[in-house]
Amino acid sequence: MASPDSVTATAPASIGNIGVGFDILGQSFTALKDTVTARRIPETGVRLGSVDGLVSKLPDEPQRNTALRGALALLEDAKADFGAEISVTKGVPLSAGLGGSASSAVAAVVAVNALLPEPYSTAQLFEFALEGETASSDPPPPDNVAAALFGGIVFIRPGGDPELVEIPPPSGLVCAAAHPDAELDTRLSRSILSRTVPLARVVEHSRDLASFIIGCCRDDLGLVADGLRDCLIEPQRAGLVHGFTEAKAQAMAAGALGCSLSGSGPTVFAWAREADGEAVAAALKSGFAEAGVGSRVYAAPLTGAGAEIVS
Amino acid sequence: MASPDSVTATAPASIGNIGVGFDILGQSFTALKDTVTARRIPETGVRLGSVDGLVSKLPDEPQRNTALRGALALLEDAKADFGAEISVTKGVPLSAGLGGSASSAVAAVVAVNALLPEPYSTAQLFEFALEGETASSDPPPPDNVAAALFGGIVFIRPGGDPELVEIPPPSGLVCAAAHPDAELDTRLSRSILSRTVPLARVVEHSRDLASFIIGCCRDDLGLVADGLRDCLIEPQRAGLVHGFTEAKAQAMAAGALGCSLSGSGPTVFAWAREADGEAVAAALKSGFAEAGVGSRVYAAPLTGAGAEIVS
Repeated sequence: MASPDSVTATAPASIGNIGVGFDILGQSFTALKDTVTARRIPETGVRLGSVDGLVSKLPDEPQRNTALRGALALLEDAKADFGAEISVTKGVPLSAGLGGSASSAVAAVVAVNALLPEPYSTAQLFEFALEGETASSDPPPPDNVAAALFGGIVFIRPGGDPELVEIPPPSGLVCAAAHPDAELDTRLSRSILSRTVPLARVVEHSRDLASFIIGCCRDDLGLVADGLRDCLIEPQRAGLVHGFTEAKAQAMAAGALGCSLSGSGPTVFAWAREADGEAVAAALKSGFAEAGVGSRVYAAPLTGAGAEIVS
Repeated sequence: MASPDSVTATAPASIGNIGVGFDILGQSFTALKDTVTARRIPETGVRLGSVDGLVSKLPDEPQRNTALRGALALLEDAKADFGAEISVTKGVPLSAGLGGSASSAVAAVVAVNALLPEPYSTAQLFEFALEGETASSDPPPPDNVAAALFGGIVFIRPGGDPELVEIPPPSGLVCAAAHPDAELDTRLSRSILSRTVPLARVVEHSRDLASFIIGCCRDDLGLVADGLRDCLIEPQRAGLVHGFTEAKAQAMAAGALGCSLSGSGPTVFAWAREADGEAVAAALKSGFAEAGVGSRVYAAPLTGAGAEIVS
């Protein structure tokens, strides 16, 4: 079968860290998606095509555009004798803490891959999407890229074999997220972190992480709820997100199993039982409103897929 | 049925931390056991009976003897109208990093419990054994107590509900341990620990812990081996145990999946496939010998039981 001349792929938003898993866990969040079309062009390299959706303009240099940079890295590794025009429909907001730059990189790499005469495996695509994400953050935190590519809940072990391990999502849960009307610089959100952690807090964090992972592996919601908290990073970042405290308090009161910042924020996410999902989403919005902050809320199952070819 | 007048119970040695799980994980190590006989006496309270085995003398004040202190706490809570004479056959060395004081506390509590007209559940006994362990270390690290009481691999969450969660041991593995001819003060081994940890190391440790736990839950030896290491504590304590570096190097070369200090040392433990168990045990001994240190080596399956009533 001849390779197609144009492929469209989607990649979901993602929630880095999942609260308890700073820099090692991520989950897909399929309520929001980027859509990327890769069209074969005769000259090698990449160029930016149309841009629409949440934004109408993106950088057109590969070094500053995660979709172009990932696509280029893949085409070069494959020694392709053609190039690709990359058009992006942005559905995942940028600078939201929802992995928006990673969604574009992943969708672009998956679309371009399907143009190749001998496509790579999904696992092999990880490094190219990660290279794309470098355009946004260097070194690129791998959690969003992994979750957007593979879907579900992913444990990331850079340099490990395998580098990515899927963690079974507990059953019957949804993820709600509220994106407040406020931008937060990812680099700032990272730069304020203390470089050292008290040993007692490391033990507390270990305990939470172990509870969460055992809970997921055994589908034990009590353990999941006990572990789905962030004693490590959230206390340092909470003050950067106006309304976070109120949103979290209302979400927990509405029955959330856990609630924290998505990635480096400002989006706040919560896990809840399906029956409580709508109430928890509304509580997040209400909490931000209590602090005078507008927000948009979304919800999706924890079992959401990763990147997909749609045409 | 009338309550018996004399009960004998055993409790195994234990390996605190299991390398990667500082202060949250422990495992039983049934190669060594303490045996405690509790004999009903008319007067309330506890008294020390015979002491034999590895030692011939133990403190006879409950505040300084883990077996007496645990037994007394249980009898008082049960408002028993009788007391107990506690005789100890010490099979688990003290100050070895093998939970020797916890073994005595656990065996004593389990034996005394069987004298009661309405015995407590094993889970309920945890707090009394922990109170006993306070005679040795205050606050008492709970990992050895939990592992000696319940057996297998235990995740400890003080204040959690439940406080103890069993982790399924990966199949086909054994634990080897070498106890070198050197004592190490537990309090010293704890006091030298840095009170803060670099954030990058916290992430590395999180990654190891997640690998280890997912590996155990899925019976995936690759993940277990990847996670069974201690980047947090071992580098700080290794220098206190002469021969540790050589013992670990030889054990890993002989096929160990991982090797670290047992609790706060000086005992060194290693996990290995059953087929490699003897070679790894011999390698631990050989490594200590290389450094001019004599040692005794032991091995036991990971599925070892906890405390048991034997008569």
